[in-house]
Amino acid sequence: MSAARTRRDGSKRQEILTAATERFGRDGYEDTRWADIAADVGVGATALYHYFESKQHCLFVIMDDAIQDFGSRFADITARDGADPVRALVGVLRDCFELSELDIQRNRLLVAEQGLLGGRRTSPREEQARQAARARARDLEFAWASFLSGAMQQGAIPRNDPRLLSRAILGLYNSVWQWYRPNGIVELDAVAAFFIGRILAMIGLPPEVQVPLVA
Amino acid sequence: MSAARTRRDGSKRQEILTAATERFGRDGYEDTRWADIAADVGVGATALYHYFESKQHCLFVIMDDAIQDFGSRFADITARDGADPVRALVGVLRDCFELSELDIQRNRLLVAEQGLLGGRRTSPREEQARQAARARARDLEFAWASFLSGAMQQGAIPRNDPRLLSRAILGLYNSVWQWYRPNGIVELDAVAAFFIGRILAMIGLPPEVQVPLVA
Repeated sequence: MSAARTRRDGSKRQEILTAATERFGRDGYEDTRWADIAADVGVGATALYHYFESKQHCLFVIMDDAIQDFGSRFADITARDGADPVRALVGVLRDCFELSELDIQRNRLLVAEQGLLGGRRTSPREEQARQAARARARDLEFAWASFLSGAMQQGAIPRNDPRLLSRAILGLYNSVWQWYRPNGIVELDAVAAFFIGRILAMIGLPPEVQVPLVA
Repeated sequence: MSAARTRRDGSKRQEILTAATERFGRDGYEDTRWADIAADVGVGATALYHYFESKQHCLFVIMDDAIQDFGSRFADITARDGADPVRALVGVLRDCFELSELDIQRNRLLVAEQGLLGGRRTSPREEQARQAARARARDLEFAWASFLSGAMQQGAIPRNDPRLLSRAILGLYNSVWQWYRPNGIVELDAVAAFFIGRILAMIGLPPEVQVPLVA
């Protein structure tokens, strides 16, 4: 495959992922037909199959990409601010709320359809994509637990079970995308300030530490 | 309809709901066939239709029942301990983790399939059940927000946005059922103690208040 062909393939693949994320977000995953996505990007069903076997396969790849993004941003910020765990923590939490509309739709999809990640698929391509997304989610949870464990050892945050605390932080963050709607009553900035403050409180940082960091 | 017939109908309906909850929890909602549930309770597809139009209709009723249970237990405990909001709060949170295996499967289902509650149905019976479950969820959230608002006015918990705080509490609680498995590595009692402590911290109660209440 030539370099030009690879690039074309890559950008068409990205176009399909974007169109699918918008469709799933707008019409719901269940109610979106795979053929509608093909029409959105102007490719036939056969060409679409070159990239994704099915709507389900495409969904798993969208989820995997979303979790990978969270993971690489988490790694960058914690590496940069590693010497000051509380600063790194606040940086990561702020970053988690700096989202485009497409990012928000992707988060909503990740949360609404996470049940599908639990069910084994008979198609090898779908099953491979499902397992990849699950492994990525486990890696992210492990990165959080390692970071929290280090912060506890340094005395920067109160000691607690780092694995359960990671799950609590990720669970609380994910829950936002169950109800948050762009252009809804509550602005994203207000939601971010509230949830960052509550996550810091949940971790056990006292209010006098939380307030200046969040403001 | 005679009283005896109503009772038989009621218990058969309950049998179907229990069998469906177990099937959905064990095999996954997507992978469960409606016919398997009929076979489990020993009724034909036509008789099953008397109670539920479809697998989806049955799922919405299971979700509605689960949320209704949470709501009535919340109302009972907060009415009983109304004079002491922190005591009522701890009572409600403890009660939320006193669960049978079937309750746990119902919670898992509620969380894994909540995306389906967002999508309008074309069948009137399904759509009615979907809207009933959504209304019930809004009522529960409103009951929590009213309770928290009252507790803030009494000075029992720090002031904050009661609606966002309700969503944070419910979101954090619901997140447990995404990963908790009966007979898994972490015991339910340990999960309960951890999450009740973290919810109290998130609400802003100081550690010295949290510890004796949870222990």
